[in-house]
Amino acid sequence: MKTAGLSINLATVRQQFGLKDGVEACLKHGITAIAPWRDHIKATGLAEAARIIKSNGLKVTGYCRGGLFPAADAAGRQAAIDDNKQMIDEAAVIRADCVIIIGGGLPQGSRDIVAARDMFFDGMAAILPHARAAKVALAIEPLHPMYAADRGCISTLAEALDLCDALGKGVGVAIDVYHLWWDPDLARQIERARSRILAHHICDWLVPTRDLLLDRGMMGDGVIDLPAIRRMVEDAGFYGHQEVEIFSENWWKRPGEEVLRTCVERYNSVC
Amino acid sequence: MKTAGLSINLATVRQQFGLKDGVEACLKHGITAIAPWRDHIKATGLAEAARIIKSNGLKVTGYCRGGLFPAADAAGRQAAIDDNKQMIDEAAVIRADCVIIIGGGLPQGSRDIVAARDMFFDGMAAILPHARAAKVALAIEPLHPMYAADRGCISTLAEALDLCDALGKGVGVAIDVYHLWWDPDLARQIERARSRILAHHICDWLVPTRDLLLDRGMMGDGVIDLPAIRRMVEDAGFYGHQEVEIFSENWWKRPGEEVLRTCVERYNSVC
Repeated sequence: MKTAGLSINLATVRQQFGLKDGVEACLKHGITAIAPWRDHIKATGLAEAARIIKSNGLKVTGYCRGGLFPAADAAGRQAAIDDNKQMIDEAAVIRADCVIIIGGGLPQGSRDIVAARDMFFDGMAAILPHARAAKVALAIEPLHPMYAADRGCISTLAEALDLCDALGKGVGVAIDVYHLWWDPDLARQIERARSRILAHHICDWLVPTRDLLLDRGMMGDGVIDLPAIRRMVEDAGFYGHQEVEIFSENWWKRPGEEVLRTCVERYNSVC
Repeated sequence: MKTAGLSINLATVRQQFGLKDGVEACLKHGITAIAPWRDHIKATGLAEAARIIKSNGLKVTGYCRGGLFPAADAAGRQAAIDDNKQMIDEAAVIRADCVIIIGGGLPQGSRDIVAARDMFFDGMAAILPHARAAKVALAIEPLHPMYAADRGCISTLAEALDLCDALGKGVGVAIDVYHLWWDPDLARQIERARSRILAHHICDWLVPTRDLLLDRGMMGDGVIDLPAIRRMVEDAGFYGHQEVEIFSENWWKRPGEEVLRTCVERYNSVC
């Protein structure tokens, strides 16, 4: 079965594997691209993580995740900026294609989503010179509107692209089907995105969805027309990896080998 | 406390009251506007429901809910059209300001949300002459994107207004803060909506939200800036009622009198 073009976001097997054994399991299934999270790198150590990635010839389709700039006070916002800069440095060491950036939620007690979005913009503007100098691309990932309050105040691809327009070079978008499949404006915005598409994440939307955060579906088990969205993405000029990112209590309970085998099967039969 | 301009969607006290005792409880709190659901009318009988509403001088800010046109086959689509026409007739009898219309979900087994939206448009076009003849306005209510798969394939105000543009006279929109508060395009689209705003529904978005369907919050308990959205709505020219619609296992467990009292208090202190 084909594994070219398939990447595994290690959150998909977060409960089963760390970085080292996760990489070994991926390689056993012929998967040579991954996207680690910050805690994977921290637990392994940056130098060792970079060694594992390099020695195995792995592609890193993204490094999760930065952004999250809105905060209740200036100190909190500065801490987020500093942390993002450090993350950019780490991404350079592991040679990630991009740092995945999410909006962040409303600061505690706030009802002002416009202000949160302004803080997001200011944070991006503050870290962008650092990212450009490090030659690390920043991929804004719009999150599903159900996360707007507590996780991702940037909700639509249109909004993310407006931010790219305003910020200039070095910023693009990550298109995750879970967050965007419902958008009636999706085709037009993906066409608009063009070379700014830096990542394409896949999974599925289950009916019913039993949990807002931890009930993402395996490709083919839900209602998302994955081939249709892939066509839009390729028509816009992105032929990069499809990265499987599934947060699921269900899949986290199963053996990691089974999860990876299923990812490969579905990538071949569904995507 | 002020109750002018406040309406209670009877789903808010669905577990506590039917139409008759719900109306009595509302009146006791000085509330003279309601929005019933179809099952309320069915349980009471149409003529008796109309009598209760008329004899108490109640305003009916909406009748819930029609639409739901997408279906797996032509017979299913025709059944939805017939049912909506009957609902329009009922709305005329109880003198509802509008029939609340939602998109409906994907037909069983479908992954084609574009086709579902086309079915929605066709259904609306099929019932519109009937609605115009009955002088009943149809209010398209965009639902939160988390319902796009199984309940409401019309997700944004922009999309609803595009449908209004295409369908012509007799169709407007219902603006429910729960479904739309997160939209970065909200201010612009409410301004665009103008005289097509037929209803304004209020409640709140809780953090955390524990259930996709039944965890709406009482006004003031969540993160929605209700006064800001009300200003947008009034600036667009709508000075009609704010209708409280809360689906909540939590509020359904409490005494109905307490729920209504809290609605009045929060309407005064928050909205």
